[in-house]
Amino acid sequence: MGLRLLDAGFDLCVWNRSPHKTLPLQQRGARVAQTAAQAVAGADVVLTMLANGPAVNEVLTGGVAQVMPAHALFIDMSSIPPDMARQHAALLGQRGISALDAPVSGGVVGAAAGTLAIMAGGAPEAFERALPVFAALGRATRVGPVGAGALAKLANQMIVGITIGAVAEALLLVEAGGADPAAVRDAIRGGFAESRVLELHGARMLSRNFAPGAHATTQLKDLASALRTAEDEGLELPLTRGVHALYSRFVETGGASLDHSALLLALERLNARER
Amino acid sequence: MGLRLLDAGFDLCVWNRSPHKTLPLQQRGARVAQTAAQAVAGADVVLTMLANGPAVNEVLTGGVAQVMPAHALFIDMSSIPPDMARQHAALLGQRGISALDAPVSGGVVGAAAGTLAIMAGGAPEAFERALPVFAALGRATRVGPVGAGALAKLANQMIVGITIGAVAEALLLVEAGGADPAAVRDAIRGGFAESRVLELHGARMLSRNFAPGAHATTQLKDLASALRTAEDEGLELPLTRGVHALYSRFVETGGASLDHSALLLALERLNARER
Repeated sequence: MGLRLLDAGFDLCVWNRSPHKTLPLQQRGARVAQTAAQAVAGADVVLTMLANGPAVNEVLTGGVAQVMPAHALFIDMSSIPPDMARQHAALLGQRGISALDAPVSGGVVGAAAGTLAIMAGGAPEAFERALPVFAALGRATRVGPVGAGALAKLANQMIVGITIGAVAEALLLVEAGGADPAAVRDAIRGGFAESRVLELHGARMLSRNFAPGAHATTQLKDLASALRTAEDEGLELPLTRGVHALYSRFVETGGASLDHSALLLALERLNARER
Repeated sequence: MGLRLLDAGFDLCVWNRSPHKTLPLQQRGARVAQTAAQAVAGADVVLTMLANGPAVNEVLTGGVAQVMPAHALFIDMSSIPPDMARQHAALLGQRGISALDAPVSGGVVGAAAGTLAIMAGGAPEAFERALPVFAALGRATRVGPVGAGALAKLANQMIVGITIGAVAEALLLVEAGGADPAAVRDAIRGGFAESRVLELHGARMLSRNFAPGAHATTQLKDLASALRTAEDEGLELPLTRGVHALYSRFVETGGASLDHSALLLALERLNARER
């Protein structure tokens, strides 16, 4: 994402807690800051892309929120809970700083190609200001006020996780019943069951290639966040709850470092059909 | 499907329990039989496309299985439980008749266009014999021995039903949290959450257009068949069980005649958020 911004001509100052990760950007012309606070001093736009909500919180309250210029636009592209995104916007709002929560979908491939799906929550004016930045990164859609971008990412992750579970249960049943799982997947491709998950994660399940990709832990983190958000709204979401339970048990029993498509293994274990 | 077979030049004799449904075929050159047994007398290939397993059973044991020529190929394109498909094949096998279970996906649109996904179970030789017939109807894949076609259809329906539930839960959460569901759907289209269901059934949910389409009762029938088949195999499939429970309650409480995408209404009711 940093390389895409440099290619688009932006003056970029970067910080990472692991300094060596900034080298490829430095070689392409980015300035490298020693601290996050140094990185945002004088910036017009501040982007964060961090592991989770507490990491964003730590960076903001550890100096960045105080040092950021009052005219700056803050865009958090991390995947964090909607209530934390709202808290961050409120914190920055005290200094008159506009904020967008704008998590992405599309992975490393989408980031490199500039084809990320960007789900942005915040004021329409803030979204307009962010458009030149977003244009370098992918396809941005404003999905509502502050917190809505984070909500959209949870929706995305709910659909991805549950669809992975659906494909895994379907492949498990057809194999147990004596059909050829690869032929079944081929037969149903292009019909109403067609999905990116059937295409990509289904292929991983058939070849039993569970090197990540997207980690099961990340999938679990987002599903847990979706369930907490649903509870805050007084909502019961049975399928989200069901697939969260599967991922939770899977991560606890050794699946943490595998791709999220490895949920098939959790279902095989549940049914004592390990291979 | 009958019209497609006539267009492909097949000599077609048809029967339907509702005689007026055969008129469009008669006008295009099909012979019309007064009974199912009359329809299959002298046939090289016998196709059934009926509501469910018991309907196929009734037609077979009501004379058709006895009258069908021993050299005939039987192709059941109905969606029925795999164990019934195996029973039918065994019954016909006693007379030396080959059988395929070859249910389809793609709906009325796919049937008219000859683009059905055909999932065929049976011997390779029987599948080869059926190819000229299948070519007039859609894209056929052999997915295993007798019963495998029915299994593949269950897999298809599991994925469709669970994905509908995933999209419904996601839209419910983003709306409750104050995001714009239509914008969220637009934002996540084309990413890992993309599916035919997000495209077609998601659009129905947003416009609240629940005229079928595919009935919730049919979805429930297939999910119940998938659960029974899983039980026969000693498999526990938590997401299939969860979405079956949702459809079951929905059909019992007035949803029977609506499209299967109306599962959104069941989730709204569960959460006392009727609109």
